[in-house]
Amino acid sequence: MNHRFIPLSVPNLKGNERNYVNEAIDMEWVSTGGAFIDRFENAVKAYVRSEGAVACQSGTAGLHLSMLLCGVGSDDAVIVPTLTFIAAVNPVRYVGAEPIFMDCDESLCMDPEKLKEYCETCCKFLDGKLIDASGRHIKAVLVVHVFGNLADLEMICDIAEQYHLKVIEDATEALGSYYLSGRFAGKFAGTIGNVGVYSFNGNKIVTSGGGGMIVSQDMELLNHAKHLSTQAKSDDVYYSHDMVGYNYRMTNLQAAVGLAQLEQIEDFIDRKKQNYCCYLEHEINLIPFRKEIRPNYWFYAYLSNNRDKLIQHCTEQNIQVRPVWQLIHTTTPYLNSTNFKIERALYYYDRIVCLPCSSNLCVDDIARVVQIVKEQERLSL
Amino acid sequence: MNHRFIPLSVPNLKGNERNYVNEAIDMEWVSTGGAFIDRFENAVKAYVRSEGAVACQSGTAGLHLSMLLCGVGSDDAVIVPTLTFIAAVNPVRYVGAEPIFMDCDESLCMDPEKLKEYCETCCKFLDGKLIDASGRHIKAVLVVHVFGNLADLEMICDIAEQYHLKVIEDATEALGSYYLSGRFAGKFAGTIGNVGVYSFNGNKIVTSGGGGMIVSQDMELLNHAKHLSTQAKSDDVYYSHDMVGYNYRMTNLQAAVGLAQLEQIEDFIDRKKQNYCCYLEHEINLIPFRKEIRPNYWFYAYLSNNRDKLIQHCTEQNIQVRPVWQLIHTTTPYLNSTNFKIERALYYYDRIVCLPCSSNLCVDDIARVVQIVKEQERLSL
Repeated sequence: MNHRFIPLSVPNLKGNERNYVNEAIDMEWVSTGGAFIDRFENAVKAYVRSEGAVACQSGTAGLHLSMLLCGVGSDDAVIVPTLTFIAAVNPVRYVGAEPIFMDCDESLCMDPEKLKEYCETCCKFLDGKLIDASGRHIKAVLVVHVFGNLADLEMICDIAEQYHLKVIEDATEALGSYYLSGRFAGKFAGTIGNVGVYSFNGNKIVTSGGGGMIVSQDMELLNHAKHLSTQAKSDDVYYSHDMVGYNYRMTNLQAAVGLAQLEQIEDFIDRKKQNYCCYLEHEINLIPFRKEIRPNYWFYAYLSNNRDKLIQHCTEQNIQVRPVWQLIHTTTPYLNSTNFKIERALYYYDRIVCLPCSSNLCVDDIARVVQIVKEQERLSL
Repeated sequence: MNHRFIPLSVPNLKGNERNYVNEAIDMEWVSTGGAFIDRFENAVKAYVRSEGAVACQSGTAGLHLSMLLCGVGSDDAVIVPTLTFIAAVNPVRYVGAEPIFMDCDESLCMDPEKLKEYCETCCKFLDGKLIDASGRHIKAVLVVHVFGNLADLEMICDIAEQYHLKVIEDATEALGSYYLSGRFAGKFAGTIGNVGVYSFNGNKIVTSGGGGMIVSQDMELLNHAKHLSTQAKSDDVYYSHDMVGYNYRMTNLQAAVGLAQLEQIEDFIDRKKQNYCCYLEHEINLIPFRKEIRPNYWFYAYLSNNRDKLIQHCTEQNIQVRPVWQLIHTTTPYLNSTNFKIERALYYYDRIVCLPCSSNLCVDDIARVVQIVKEQERLSL
């Protein structure tokens, strides 16, 4: 019997996407100018309560700009997690800097205890600068809110303050997640560090086809982001340019889709929460989100002792699942980079299988995933 | 009396754009995978008769990838024109290399005589490598086909062959232009050098909102371009990555627009040719395109001895015109770069005023532009 393909995480475009995109086409405003870009920026800004928001071409582009905004340059260093998508770390290299890889805690996000230990035991703090063993100035820490969970930003921000590190929040997977308690109660992922970045890639909780957004409480920094994303053009008539810029601005067409999607985000989160709970009710033990947060329930991480067999079986059964990303410190381009006491990430890498989590997943889909997963796990006992 | 605004160069989206975009949304395929990407790539490949085509996020992204494909890296050098949009040159810096600025000939494209003179008199050719005065290895020459005109590629390719330089064709403004005679008769802009790049930005002859395309006769090089544009992912299940890659892939939504636009390109070129001729009939002396080519008539360059006054007057009359780009060797980020005998570019920079050239420009629009231009030019006599 051939079952319908159940994808891992696909877009759900049943709101105003078609209307807005048609409006953009009818107005013949589809490129890097147009009303939907402003509307989408304002909508994100209002939703996450940041001072401002600058739309760009992708989450990667946003992270690249963030490196520049935080003054990271040639031969500097940035502390990054090893357990994340490589797009988070490549921007460190784009600006000629080197990453230093950290382990995760049980939230899958950066372990603040190890971050502290690394700063205390492996670096020197000289003239207000944190210097690593090879003499590089560590300018920033890049925190990824993995799978929609939230990192322990209270502790990380304290460490960053102590060692004069900028905090870049990679909130590409965590739009909509916020803290419920503690110092940052009510604050959304992306709005706490010096700069935060969202992604609207096709697999994210809301999509603009491809796209990203930079948020911050620092308007000067955001204005600079916009300048850099539009080829650093300093004069609109005479095409003067005061620095090396980028073609990183979001298009009106992307923004039209993104705006329509953002209108539905709380509905998507509700559905993803229901589906998450549905898996749990079927005794599929997904890694929990932190208790002190409202997550966006983006990705569902299941722990298996037979990862590869389970992935193979699901694939054969037309169910799309995947392991977590290959740990970045073990990928070819970063084999020679520094890493510090990576242990938990290895444990999770060996075991995580991400299960289907699209917001348009129905209970029958979940029941079938549960059946196939349990079937394979029994075989592997 | 308030006249309707006449823009310089805006999209014309009256073909299948709406249908294709709606199809992409209805299928919920809007991100970096989907049938329109393949269809658009195949359509461009067939139109320009290249071996293959790889769609990407922008012309700038395509040029950045081209630098990497041609092996340009840290401390290398690339010969570039000074009279072009800065997006053509910034990718040289993205890869850590230095540009060397050349003058233009009467086509506004790179002057091959000066290129030859520079290579002969300012460089050394050692062990098959062209080395500049500061010891940098000159790896490539970046040729821009300015305004849809074509560079003298016969001579430039000969020089490149002699000195082992890769030829990168920046055909971002010249999709549809081809040679009518000579060694490259029948060949389209972008398909002659080692690699060619098109742009589908909103102001180009066809648009995909934002977007670009890399073409080449070398499939291995194109496969590498695709790999680099998708974060260099070497394994789809396990997310392995064998090098530092980029998020530069075009989205299905962009491709849907681009495909619909490409279907109309010959019609657009016909209309732009008619409009170009219409200006000439009104005795507005636009810079001619080369006789031995079929241009795409993208931009209309008028020479004025009163550039700034003319721009001001047109702007006041609600007509959008612009000077040519500030010469790149005079912009802040490139003030310290090498430049060689730049003369003609200065002449053109002082005089060019680009007049409205959208494909949906009507004869009444042209008549009004002509009237306003003549009015101001008489005043300035």
